[in-house]
Amino acid sequence: MRLAELSERSGVSTATIKYYLREGLLPPGRQVNATTAEYEEEHLRRLRLVRALIQVGRIPVATAKEVLGHVDDESLGRTMRLGAALWALPQPPEPAEDDAAVTAARREVDRLLAEVRWDSVRELGDLSPVHRSLVTTVATLIRLGYDWNAEELVPYARLMREVAARDLDFLETHESDAEKAEMAVAAAVLFEPVLRALHRLAQEEESARRYGIV
Amino acid sequence: MRLAELSERSGVSTATIKYYLREGLLPPGRQVNATTAEYEEEHLRRLRLVRALIQVGRIPVATAKEVLGHVDDESLGRTMRLGAALWALPQPPEPAEDDAAVTAARREVDRLLAEVRWDSVRELGDLSPVHRSLVTTVATLIRLGYDWNAEELVPYARLMREVAARDLDFLETHESDAEKAEMAVAAAVLFEPVLRALHRLAQEEESARRYGIV
Repeated sequence: MRLAELSERSGVSTATIKYYLREGLLPPGRQVNATTAEYEEEHLRRLRLVRALIQVGRIPVATAKEVLGHVDDESLGRTMRLGAALWALPQPPEPAEDDAAVTAARREVDRLLAEVRWDSVRELGDLSPVHRSLVTTVATLIRLGYDWNAEELVPYARLMREVAARDLDFLETHESDAEKAEMAVAAAVLFEPVLRALHRLAQEEESARRYGIV
Repeated sequence: MRLAELSERSGVSTATIKYYLREGLLPPGRQVNATTAEYEEEHLRRLRLVRALIQVGRIPVATAKEVLGHVDDESLGRTMRLGAALWALPQPPEPAEDDAAVTAARREVDRLLAEVRWDSVRELGDLSPVHRSLVTTVATLIRLGYDWNAEELVPYARLMREVAARDLDFLETHESDAEKAEMAVAAAVLFEPVLRALHRLAQEEESARRYGIV
């Protein structure tokens, strides 16, 4: 398709598409002559993802570029390709220093991971920014004086594992590793808010069932 | 306990506690003489929640005051007391206009709620800001051209219902309705990031199990 059609089908103006092309967020089309390029379905798909990252996720252009660099990195194995793309997304702040709360949080998170036998992420440990952010959040809870121990988290971890298995089943409906990585990033930005809303709606439903609606 | 002990046990400076008292975020202590007031365990608990809202949730003082107003409102039934407190927390933006994507999203969300028989939230509908935010997010997905239908969300909704049942089981370990509402608010601000981190860690574990770690 030509630029005009790509713009119409994506709802992104031609000026913005040209900007994304210049910034390297979108790979160039196939040049058919000096002034015309031809674009494929994969350009449309990539354009949707770029819009999701920038307009919905409010992610800076430089960060989006880094995320997409990992999506396109064919030298990576599948786990690291998904991981690297997701890890490049903006992450919550990390602990400033290793105080007593961080030490306690690290111990509780490790006990939790051992209990549910998540051996791979336990081994990765601090390498994963997600692991570091879990430690930070648990440390905040401890610092605020909320009672806290690994056992209480076990059933939640098990349920999240079921959710994650569904996520990956869904990714597997996409053929190439590049498409899988693209969908993983789109899901992190677009689907997490859906999941959070479903969680809160479920609380309302459960509360109404237990205590009545008013 | 005296102000100095309340400060020490909470880790909040006496100046900040006095500010919270002036702003009505913390109920006054029992005056024992002209210059001294006595504080109870419930003051400590409330102080932790105020810190969680303001320092961790970065919620404006006026909003925190509104949230706590609902927590303390004894005229409300339990569902509405929990609901009103949570609804007063900052919510994602709402749809600007009812375009075709919003109409389609509204229909898909309604089909989903019918399918999983969440009759109470279906009845509440647009009254709940959580319901409105789910519609907004689904509309964004549709607008970006991501394939979308209610059936795919059904298993996720069922898992979130199990998570919500655990949440309420936990709330029920707290005696009074005021404590329950306090914990519900604390969990929305402090526990949701834990759940999100667990979800992402579970994806990493599942990916490593399926595709190997590198």
